Amino acid sequence: MKITKDLYQGSLALLTDFYQLTMAYAYWKSGKSEQEAVFNLFFRKHPFQSGFTIAAGLEYVVDFCNNFTFNEDDLSYLGNMKNSDGSPVFVPDFLDYLKEMKFSCDIDAVEEGTVVFPHTPLIRVKGPLIQCQLLETALLNIINFQTLIATKAARVVLAAKGDSVLEFGLRRAQGIDGALAASRASYIGGCSATSNVMAGKLFGIPVSGTHAHSWIMSFDTELEAFKAYADAFPEKCIFLVDTYDTVNGIRNAIEVGKILRENGKEMLGVRIDSGDLAYFSNIAREMLDEAGFPDAKVVASNDLDEHIITSLKIQEASISVWGVGTKLVTAYDQPALGAVYKLAAIKNKEGVWEPKVKVSQQSIKINIPGEHQISRFLRNGRAVADMIFLQEDVDNKSSVMIIDPIDSTKRKRLNLGDLEEYKLLKPIFKAGQQVYVCPPIEAIKQNTKDNLQCFDKTHKRLTNPHVYPVGLEENLYQLRTDLVFKMKNYDQE
Amino acid sequence: MKITKDLYQGSLALLTDFYQLTMAYAYWKSGKSEQEAVFNLFFRKHPFQSGFTIAAGLEYVVDFCNNFTFNEDDLSYLGNMKNSDGSPVFVPDFLDYLKEMKFSCDIDAVEEGTVVFPHTPLIRVKGPLIQCQLLETALLNIINFQTLIATKAARVVLAAKGDSVLEFGLRRAQGIDGALAASRASYIGGCSATSNVMAGKLFGIPVSGTHAHSWIMSFDTELEAFKAYADAFPEKCIFLVDTYDTVNGIRNAIEVGKILRENGKEMLGVRIDSGDLAYFSNIAREMLDEAGFPDAKVVASNDLDEHIITSLKIQEASISVWGVGTKLVTAYDQPALGAVYKLAAIKNKEGVWEPKVKVSQQSIKINIPGEHQISRFLRNGRAVADMIFLQEDVDNKSSVMIIDPIDSTKRKRLNLGDLEEYKLLKPIFKAGQQVYVCPPIEAIKQNTKDNLQCFDKTHKRLTNPHVYPVGLEENLYQLRTDLVFKMKNYDQE
Repeated sequence: MKITKDLYQGSLALLTDFYQLTMAYAYWKSGKSEQEAVFNLFFRKHPFQSGFTIAAGLEYVVDFCNNFTFNEDDLSYLGNMKNSDGSPVFVPDFLDYLKEMKFSCDIDAVEEGTVVFPHTPLIRVKGPLIQCQLLETALLNIINFQTLIATKAARVVLAAKGDSVLEFGLRRAQGIDGALAASRASYIGGCSATSNVMAGKLFGIPVSGTHAHSWIMSFDTELEAFKAYADAFPEKCIFLVDTYDTVNGIRNAIEVGKILRENGKEMLGVRIDSGDLAYFSNIAREMLDEAGFPDAKVVASNDLDEHIITSLKIQEASISVWGVGTKLVTAYDQPALGAVYKLAAIKNKEGVWEPKVKVSQQSIKINIPGEHQISRFLRNGRAVADMIFLQEDVDNKSSVMIIDPIDSTKRKRLNLGDLEEYKLLKPIFKAGQQVYVCPPIEAIKQNTKDNLQCFDKTHKRLTNPHVYPVGLEENLYQLRTDLVFKMKNYDQE
Repeated sequence: MKITKDLYQGSLALLTDFYQLTMAYAYWKSGKSEQEAVFNLFFRKHPFQSGFTIAAGLEYVVDFCNNFTFNEDDLSYLGNMKNSDGSPVFVPDFLDYLKEMKFSCDIDAVEEGTVVFPHTPLIRVKGPLIQCQLLETALLNIINFQTLIATKAARVVLAAKGDSVLEFGLRRAQGIDGALAASRASYIGGCSATSNVMAGKLFGIPVSGTHAHSWIMSFDTELEAFKAYADAFPEKCIFLVDTYDTVNGIRNAIEVGKILRENGKEMLGVRIDSGDLAYFSNIAREMLDEAGFPDAKVVASNDLDEHIITSLKIQEASISVWGVGTKLVTAYDQPALGAVYKLAAIKNKEGVWEPKVKVSQQSIKINIPGEHQISRFLRNGRAVADMIFLQEDVDNKSSVMIIDPIDSTKRKRLNLGDLEEYKLLKPIFKAGQQVYVCPPIEAIKQNTKDNLQCFDKTHKRLTNPHVYPVGLEENLYQLRTDLVFKMKNYDQE
C-alpha cells in the first residue's frame, strides 16, 4: 500500500519547514551537502504522564521516503521565490541539484506497535547531510502524531479491560489527515473499529456505525424511526435511545427488538450518547434483561477517555462497548508529542565519524551522541530494561552497566547471560532501497498487544506509573559527558 | 483554487462516518431520501474561554461540495461490505443511486474571517435529506478545525500587540493536513507567515525560516557556521544563537553581522529558542544595540502561546518577532471545537416545513429549530448584538427583543432605526451551483482584522472576556420553547 501516494496528489517534498530548504541550499553552497551524517528521532517524555509509548507511523515514513522527489511544480514554486531586492532565493543550479537528487539514506527504525521510551531513537537516518535535513520535518510530523494517538488508544483500550473500543473521532479531528492518521493509529493502539469510512478503505480497518439523532428527528416519532431502521438493517440494530427521553427510548428499542425477534433477527443493543452514563446504562441493562434481551449490548459515547472509562467501570456502569471520539483522536489532554530530530554524528573531512551534542541550559534537551542501537532485555518474557549503546562498547561483554540519561546516580547492572536480548532498531532502507516489508495493519495491532504483554502491569498503570529503566551503556554515558564538558568549556572564561 | 482536489487523489466522498451511509441507505429504503431538510452547523461554546471565535474553512467546504461524487473505487469498496451472514450491506440499486447522485443543496454560510458566537449557524445546508446527511461529517471536520485554529491565531496575534507572529507548527501538527489546514487558518487569524513550504505553495501564504541547531552542529564552530550561512544568504541572516551558549552565540552573531556590513548587507537579527526568553532577549537587545545593530530583531520561539507572550510583554522582554508552533497549530489548551450539525427543519409529506428540536437532559444541547438568518447590529461601526431569527418574524418591525438561548431572563431590546444591520449568512450554493466567489486569502485575513475592529476590546480580552449579546428573536424563542415542552411531554406520564 502506498499511503501518501494513494491519498495525496503530486509530491510531498515541500511538506517541510522552509529552513530545511535554506539550510539545504547553504550546505550545497558550502560543499557540505554530501557529507555523511546520522540523525536520531526521539522524544524526551512520555505523553499523558504515561509509563509507556507505542511507536507508530513508520509505514507512512517508508512511503514518504520512497516517493521523495521534487517535481516540476515544486521546483518552479521554489524558483519563483524572491529576496527583497528581487533576486531569486535559490539559484537554478541548486534547483537542478534538487531535481536530480535521489534518496540514498540508510534508515533504521523501531517497528510500529513497539513499546518505546524517552531518549531512545524511534528512527535513525544516516546519509548525505542535505537529505537527512530535508527529511526532518515530514518524519517528525508523521511519527509525532501517530505515536501520540497509538499511545492514547492503548491507554483507552487498557481502561476498557477487554471491552470493544470504537474510534468515532472524524468530526472533531484536526483536519482530513488528522482524522485518517488518527484512525490508523487508534487501530494500531487496540481499537476494534473506526467510524471513518475513508480510513476503512485506505487502511483496511473495520468500520462501524448505525444512526444519529437526525435519523430519529426526521420521523414523526422515535418508534417509527426505529422500525424503519430495523427494516433497512435488521442485522445491525443498535438503537440510539437518547434523542428525546432515554428511558422511553429504551422502551421503544425493546418494542422494535421484539418485532425483530419475531422475524428471526436479534437487536444488537442500544446506544446512549448523553446524560449520566452510569445511571442510564444500568437502567438500560435492567430493562433489556427483564424484557428478555440479556445479550443486547449497551454502547456508550460522549467525551470519553481512559479516565472516564475507569471511573464508569468503578461505578459498575453496564457498558460493554465504548465509542471514543474527540479525546482520542486529538489526544485532548496532550495534543502533541514533542519528538525531535537531532544530529548525532557527522563524518569529518578526514573520513572520521565525530559524535555530536547540542548543549542546553535545560539538561533534558542534551541529546545522545553517536550512532546507537537499542537493546531490550527480557527475563522469562518480562522486559527488565532498555539499553542505548554503541555496538563496539558491548561486544564480548558478559555484563553491562546502564546509566539514566538525566540522573546519573540511577544505574542498573545487567548480567547478559541471564537475559534474552532484542535489538529494537531494524533496517528499513539501505542506501535508499527499502529492505523492510511493512507488515499488514492486523500484525501491527498484534505487535502492540504482544509488546504490552511483556511489561509489568505497574508500568501500564494509567496514573503514576512505575518507571521502566532505560539507560545509556556506561561508555556511551562517558562519551556524552565528555562532549558536554568540552562544549560547555567550563575551564575557559 | 481547488484545495482538496489539488491535494488529494480521487474522491473524498468516503470522508464520513459510516453511520451517515447506513442512514443514507435507510432513508433511501424508506423513501425519504429526497425529503427536503435544513441542517445547521454551529458550536455551543467559544474555545479557550475566548470572548469571540473566527469562522474559517469555508473554501475547503466549497471545494468539497463541488467535488462531491462517489467514484468507482468508493462504490466498489461499499459494494464489498458484508453483513455477518455474508450478504452485502448495501444493495446494488442503492450504490447506483449514490453513483448518480448530484449535489443539489442550497448552502448559506458565514464568510471566513467573520467573528462568530455560540448557537449561531456558521453553515446552513438545505436540500434532500440524504445529501444533507452525507455532508455532515466532512463539513464538521473542516469547519471545526480551521475555526479553532483561526481563533487561536487571532488570540496569539492580539497578545503580540502589533509584532509579527510566525507559525512554525508543522513538525508537531496532527498529521499532514492537520499542518496544512492549520497554516492556512493561522494566516487567516493574523499570522504573518508560515514555516510550512507546502502550505505556502498551496495557499499562497508567505513562508519564512533560516536555520536550525543542526546547521551549527555540522560545523566545527558556531562562528564558522554563521559565516557559512551569511555567505549563502547575506540577505536573510537571522542567527540562531542558543546551540551551545546563548551569550557567546550573540557575540558570534555580532561578529558576523559586522562582516556582513562591510559587504553592504545587514544582519536581520538573532533567534533564541530555549532558556529564559525574558532574560536572554534583554541581553541580546543590549549587546546588539551596543554593537551598533539597533535594527536587528530578536526573534523568540519555544512553546509560546498567547498567555506566555502576554507575560513576556509584561516583563518587558525585548522580543519583536514571535515564532509560535505546537501550541498554535494543535490549539494545545483545547484541541477541538465541539461544533455540531443538527436537523432544524424538515418538509413533511404535505409539503409543509416542520421545525425540529433535539431535546436533552443538558439544556445547552437543545438546538434552535427552523431556517434562520443571523443579523449583526452595529452602532457607529461598533457591534452591539447578534440576533438569530426567522425572516417572517421581523419583517416591518421597528424594534425587536432578543432573548439569550440559555438564560431566558437575559434580554435586550434593539431599536432597529438606530442601528446598522448586516446579515451574516451569505448564499454559497443554490441548488448545487456555486454562487459565491471565494475571496483570496489576503482578503480573508483582512476580513478577520476588520471584523475584530468592530468589537469592543473587552470582548477581545484573553481572560474573562465581556460576553457579547447574542439572542433569539422573541417569536423564535417562543417557538423553540413550545417545541421543547411538546417533546418533553410534561403533561403525560
